[in-house]
Amino acid sequence: MKGAYLDHASATPVRKEVLEAMLPYFSEHFANPSNVYDMGSKIKQIVDQQRAGVAGLIGARTEEIIFTSSGAEANNLAIKGVAFARQKKGNHIIVSLIEHHSVLNSARFLERLDFETTFLPVDEYGCVDPARLAKVIRPETILVSIMHANNEIGTIEPISELAALCRKKGIIFHSDAVASVGNTKVDVNELNVDLLTLSGASLGGPKGIGALYFRNKVRLMPLIHGGIQENGRRAGTENVPGIVGFGQAAELAKKELSDTETHLRKLRDLLVTGILDRVEKVKFTGHPEKRLPGHASFCFEAIEGEALIFMLAQAGIYSNTGSACASKALKTSPVLVAIGIRADLAQGSTVFTINSSNTKEEIDYVLETLPPVVARLRAMSPIWGKEMPEYEEDICT
Amino acid sequence: MKGAYLDHASATPVRKEVLEAMLPYFSEHFANPSNVYDMGSKIKQIVDQQRAGVAGLIGARTEEIIFTSSGAEANNLAIKGVAFARQKKGNHIIVSLIEHHSVLNSARFLERLDFETTFLPVDEYGCVDPARLAKVIRPETILVSIMHANNEIGTIEPISELAALCRKKGIIFHSDAVASVGNTKVDVNELNVDLLTLSGASLGGPKGIGALYFRNKVRLMPLIHGGIQENGRRAGTENVPGIVGFGQAAELAKKELSDTETHLRKLRDLLVTGILDRVEKVKFTGHPEKRLPGHASFCFEAIEGEALIFMLAQAGIYSNTGSACASKALKTSPVLVAIGIRADLAQGSTVFTINSSNTKEEIDYVLETLPPVVARLRAMSPIWGKEMPEYEEDICT
Repeated sequence: MKGAYLDHASATPVRKEVLEAMLPYFSEHFANPSNVYDMGSKIKQIVDQQRAGVAGLIGARTEEIIFTSSGAEANNLAIKGVAFARQKKGNHIIVSLIEHHSVLNSARFLERLDFETTFLPVDEYGCVDPARLAKVIRPETILVSIMHANNEIGTIEPISELAALCRKKGIIFHSDAVASVGNTKVDVNELNVDLLTLSGASLGGPKGIGALYFRNKVRLMPLIHGGIQENGRRAGTENVPGIVGFGQAAELAKKELSDTETHLRKLRDLLVTGILDRVEKVKFTGHPEKRLPGHASFCFEAIEGEALIFMLAQAGIYSNTGSACASKALKTSPVLVAIGIRADLAQGSTVFTINSSNTKEEIDYVLETLPPVVARLRAMSPIWGKEMPEYEEDICT
Repeated sequence: MKGAYLDHASATPVRKEVLEAMLPYFSEHFANPSNVYDMGSKIKQIVDQQRAGVAGLIGARTEEIIFTSSGAEANNLAIKGVAFARQKKGNHIIVSLIEHHSVLNSARFLERLDFETTFLPVDEYGCVDPARLAKVIRPETILVSIMHANNEIGTIEPISELAALCRKKGIIFHSDAVASVGNTKVDVNELNVDLLTLSGASLGGPKGIGALYFRNKVRLMPLIHGGIQENGRRAGTENVPGIVGFGQAAELAKKELSDTETHLRKLRDLLVTGILDRVEKVKFTGHPEKRLPGHASFCFEAIEGEALIFMLAQAGIYSNTGSACASKALKTSPVLVAIGIRADLAQGSTVFTINSSNTKEEIDYVLETLPPVVARLRAMSPIWGKEMPEYEEDICT
């Protein structure tokens, strides 16, 4: 059966070379890297080699990488870790309204503990405006967290500008780059960031491993207290096979980055143009140019996103509606609300995320399959064809 | 070359059957269990089957298991999660002086946030006395955490008695059972606990996966905030291969538990009797009977534990000195201080942890190798043979 897996933002198969690299570390080279004897210190070396691999992908130094169990954990460590470490300097945090739930809910947790959060609005493309950030900064602001690219609408934020603004004022700047690392260039020095979150799974590495980049000398309270692993910044026995997988995936991603980006952009443009040509009353969401190369997101009028996902899945096409971890929790995506999408239109949200394994044939198959599916669903819709309040012109037309 | 790996408390190879069960979940069945389509919901089912496997090992219900990335994370979630959720009821926490660093340092972190901690002393065997616990309980006590078995001295605590005391007073009781689960029977109902920590790696599962058992209705603030994974109690995409490995390891451990315990006890007794017979001036630490079946811990007079570990490793024998995560951080083990071991004697701490793969031949090899190594080290020692303050008679003699 024909098919196309286009939900790489929520999960990606582990690459063959990555799994092969991991295998010896389950049962053969299994020692605890904290152990003083030879078996342990060899594993410690391996862990630090992989750390160098991950650092290399984002232009960081080896000792600036803390391994965590996921991007979500790294985001929690960044937000809570800076807040608790800088509590004496101030209690104000700024995050954008379209951050990942792990950032938003970390900030909300801190509000219970006498911290204050400003949730920064975005424009209709999902962009954070540096002038708007400048206005909400206070003397007691200690941390700003703005994601590099949004997973639901693909928009890439002007991080280097936002971060430069914060650096001038001595405010720590964090960016969640889970959606972008491996898909487009991410360099911590060009971006000017102090902290950056990444995840192994989004690179074709395994689930269960992530990392937080921290610029040397940024103080962090651990999220997981305990032993002195990760230089005292994250306790718990190191997930050695996971770290090896992450390191290998990072090295491959770095080598292939330029080809990957070209390939993704080509397929993405085919998909976007194709859908906008073939389907009426569909809004392309997020920024038309400043967006992830493999990311195409739409809101289909008079369509229930979940129904579309199910029908496409029956044809072997896998896509998403909103972010995976939120999709069961919420009726309307906060990201779509933030960019001003009408509630009924937001229901028709559908996101395609392409990776380097996808082909032109798969995109052609989607373009052939999707329009009749949309038509069938609309034929059953009680609101299709009815007069609805106008929405903004499609930004691509 | 002959050898014996006897450091199973710090790391254990992943069992062959476990790794085989995990393999399809890296690249083939890779979907995100949060996804609504068929590929995702199938994985969700698999995750819950494994959850049932882990629950079954400790007599819990499936929905009472929260997967985490390690025992350390589960301990942090238990301590901080209960503290933040019950903050309005009180601010006092009790933990024993010999808890794992992930418990001790979580409690110390909470002291920065207006919580108070009582660190409960233990007797010379490392046992917590229920009468002593009763005395330090206050009206504002919200949580007590006492480990099931200590990883450095093997002592098993009277958990059911301690927990019953707390239940009567409406205090949540947590026990870290990382060292005991899989080695001896652990049943959450017999033990009377509200929360219990376990780890996949200690069962022959992979690193990077742990779990917290929570009795239904115990309220917990998440440690990792974000999406609604693990019923809103722990955010981050599920580590599916890790969960499958943990589930498989738990099922095997349950099936084999009775044989495992008999085997461990036999080898442990051989090792302990053998060492005490062949080496003079050695103290067997921890409780002589109420201890883990595969755990043998000693303090050798006039020996530097690390030197002994190195020399044994050269002969292919792997043991430990104190807990793995503390071994590089501290000169004197707080556990040995807590049981009243003299500082110079504590330096000679050596821990052997046996698992079901070990054989009588390996123990014989240790008994043949260890005494001359100890003699060689003592011959080089500046304090050997000198008059030192007396220490208590060996509790086994």
